[in-house]
Amino acid sequence: MIKSPEKLMKKLDLNFIDKQWFILALTHRSAGSKNNERLEFLGDSILGFVIAEALFEQFPDSGEGILSRLRASLVNQESLAELARKYDIGDYLILGSGELKSGGYRRSSILSDALEAIMGAVLNDRGIEASKTWILNLFAERLQGLSLDNWQKDPKTRLQEYLQAQRLDIPKYTLVNQFGLSHEQTFEVLCEISLFKSGIKATGISRKKAEQQSAELMLDKIAQEKK
Amino acid sequence: MIKSPEKLMKKLDLNFIDKQWFILALTHRSAGSKNNERLEFLGDSILGFVIAEALFEQFPDSGEGILSRLRASLVNQESLAELARKYDIGDYLILGSGELKSGGYRRSSILSDALEAIMGAVLNDRGIEASKTWILNLFAERLQGLSLDNWQKDPKTRLQEYLQAQRLDIPKYTLVNQFGLSHEQTFEVLCEISLFKSGIKATGISRKKAEQQSAELMLDKIAQEKK
Repeated sequence: MIKSPEKLMKKLDLNFIDKQWFILALTHRSAGSKNNERLEFLGDSILGFVIAEALFEQFPDSGEGILSRLRASLVNQESLAELARKYDIGDYLILGSGELKSGGYRRSSILSDALEAIMGAVLNDRGIEASKTWILNLFAERLQGLSLDNWQKDPKTRLQEYLQAQRLDIPKYTLVNQFGLSHEQTFEVLCEISLFKSGIKATGISRKKAEQQSAELMLDKIAQEKK
Repeated sequence: MIKSPEKLMKKLDLNFIDKQWFILALTHRSAGSKNNERLEFLGDSILGFVIAEALFEQFPDSGEGILSRLRASLVNQESLAELARKYDIGDYLILGSGELKSGGYRRSSILSDALEAIMGAVLNDRGIEASKTWILNLFAERLQGLSLDNWQKDPKTRLQEYLQAQRLDIPKYTLVNQFGLSHEQTFEVLCEISLFKSGIKATGISRKKAEQQSAELMLDKIAQEKK
């Protein structure tokens, strides 16, 4: 059932001095106590760093907020699982019988964890520079495809465009509170969309800022739900 | 008012090829649009990676959960601010007049951000290996001081010990719900402590697991409050 890991190594353009690292990276915790969880911890951290550095260099004029959002768009469970699927990593996973039966090799979380574990394995076996090169190759297309257009838009615009793309109603913003003295007031706004029963409140030093902030939080909530 | 950055470089045992990186790392956003926010983004990512790798090596038998918690105990705003204070980094910050007046150089968030920005500056100026060495030196004492004792304890024990150390009452666990068929029931437990008005609920496949989970969430809440 499980294909030979050598084949996957070739597909991924990887060479290991000690192949055991690679095997371990493919071993899900359902298969036993020696599994890929520690490597995933390591891989997650090198991945975060490598992509942060790449974005820092690629977008010399972008602020920290945009860089963070760009990274989150590249490094998340769904995007990693998509990469894992591209290389059929699921076919090579070592899973316990329960996960095997329930189709664990198709689950995004398991695929994404395994890909991060492979990054940790490369780091352990070949060092920082080699793992960095490999990760950058893996993400080359996605990094090249990044455009600032979408990320420089403000949260209200992004939220509205997202909802319109999903053919959903545009968001509703309501001023629910206003407090403080006239020259230093705080505004509280409620943002509601048809996806969720309850809205999200946010405050700001102007009504507009509170609206933007509530839209930002709503975008975060949508991103959470999609995980 | 601001001391010379060269003095701080000496204290921190740093040499820069291009000192401008170091100056930029000390520049808070209140001082202008050229500030340390981008470097902080970069520094945060190299720091997370370097500490993850160090823990991976130092604790070869610990699982991912323990490694994550160890890292969170080393890398958080308060611990970074403490390190920044040890080297009087606040005295060297370049702040806008508003932050200067309101004592921004003492604020943990500003200090912690500046220290991360310095890490990003070292990375940019001297490369991965040099920044890794510097970060490991900075954290050497803390890494050596880590003991697994506290982290291997289960959440209920840790919560109880924490509260006792604060001379507070021990937590109260109440079974508030129980649902599902007899062989696959879910238990819902409420954990209450005297620090917070409202308790935290958690579920589990046994009463004990639900209690442990609620204690874990309560520990998270305490950690959040302390930030």
